[in-house]
Amino acid sequence: MGNTVITISYDGTAYSGFQVQANANTVQAELERALAVIYKAPVRINGAGRTDAGVHARGQVANFSAPFIIDSDQLPHALNCLLPDDIVVAAAHEAGDGFHARFDAVGKVYSYSIDRALQPQVLRRLYSWHMPEPLNLDQLREAARLFEGTHDFRVFQAAGTTITDTVRTIYAVSVSENVKDQILTFTFEGRGFLYRMVRMITGTLIRAGKGVLSLSEVEAALAGSNPSASGPTAPPHGLCLEKVIYEEL
Amino acid sequence: MGNTVITISYDGTAYSGFQVQANANTVQAELERALAVIYKAPVRINGAGRTDAGVHARGQVANFSAPFIIDSDQLPHALNCLLPDDIVVAAAHEAGDGFHARFDAVGKVYSYSIDRALQPQVLRRLYSWHMPEPLNLDQLREAARLFEGTHDFRVFQAAGTTITDTVRTIYAVSVSENVKDQILTFTFEGRGFLYRMVRMITGTLIRAGKGVLSLSEVEAALAGSNPSASGPTAPPHGLCLEKVIYEEL
Repeated sequence: MGNTVITISYDGTAYSGFQVQANANTVQAELERALAVIYKAPVRINGAGRTDAGVHARGQVANFSAPFIIDSDQLPHALNCLLPDDIVVAAAHEAGDGFHARFDAVGKVYSYSIDRALQPQVLRRLYSWHMPEPLNLDQLREAARLFEGTHDFRVFQAAGTTITDTVRTIYAVSVSENVKDQILTFTFEGRGFLYRMVRMITGTLIRAGKGVLSLSEVEAALAGSNPSASGPTAPPHGLCLEKVIYEEL
Repeated sequence: MGNTVITISYDGTAYSGFQVQANANTVQAELERALAVIYKAPVRINGAGRTDAGVHARGQVANFSAPFIIDSDQLPHALNCLLPDDIVVAAAHEAGDGFHARFDAVGKVYSYSIDRALQPQVLRRLYSWHMPEPLNLDQLREAARLFEGTHDFRVFQAAGTTITDTVRTIYAVSVSENVKDQILTFTFEGRGFLYRMVRMITGTLIRAGKGVLSLSEVEAALAGSNPSASGPTAPPHGLCLEKVIYEEL
């Protein structure tokens, strides 16, 4: 038995999210189906991040207890032959017995892409939020900086969740503009994120950039005293899980 | 009656090419359907380039005789509301009566994208050819240079075409490598191209880059004396019509 770790990228467009659920097409289900063919036995994987329906990943990580060991150089290609084209295993390696992709993650990096062209850029439509309206990037960047650090993000999670500890730490929120490609990218690096937190922060940043929200209103939302200043939730297709960070990988 | 010109971008994945044909889903048919709704009359468009099934466009151009004039600032948005998401009209303007998108074109720019990552980059899979094998870029660039200028490209067109004048002029073939994105892009700028010519040249360049074809074999293919040195035809999904060039636009 080996504890095998795989790095996975996927186009979330066609999936009801990463995690297995009844009567839904999920990335995890596709991966487990392909692994079962290779190992000729049921295989259950632990995914690092439970990305939502329509959200993409370049660097999702999962581990599983392999019935036998397959060379790390060969496993990705073998899996990719069995997987649909919109899921690709980029790499594999063996880890120590105790390694768990979710519990051992010490950070995650998400990107959120915004298409700034007047009419949508068709080849980017599945991977960016079309937002051609004028934005004040200076104000947007200042708002982004307010989210860095440790805060109670309870007004930045989806309604109805039962999580009570809503304090999280964001190491960095960066805003980069690719003028040539007309793409604005927000990058969020944090210890962990609440359900839909990145998308709600993104919606908030856009409102701040439009001048609809002032910096003090954003601060009030972060202080929990102005819940209506958070959101809206940006659509899933602009979001991508870029990387999961571990102490030793 | 106005002669209206539109610039169109599309994801060719779902289409049997640009040009209308019986019992097939084409970009032109979708455009004419949307135009008929707006103008409440049948509208026939002249497309500048007849892109093949699966080929994309960022800058296709078409003109049509409009039953009445709609403001150029409003037409793209009105059309985009009616068009499927994978076809976007980026701009519109009025032209003189005599303008014809195909006959008046004096050049076209195509790009061909190659994904150099070891395993396919999933978010680029629909827009690039996955080719992870080692390539000698110096040799590939030298081969690319051989195609520049005026040549008889008859061995670089799809078999079975009836065109007899196969002399064409390519102004430039450039090879640019984006190391960070692991994407290699060939850009072809020419007066006009034969059927599948860009894809056949791309296949030839890849073989030259792999060292399977020598530069003298490429030269022989261009001289028409070694037809088997041309091709293979690179797959359609890496190709994109970037721009159509006119003398006054």
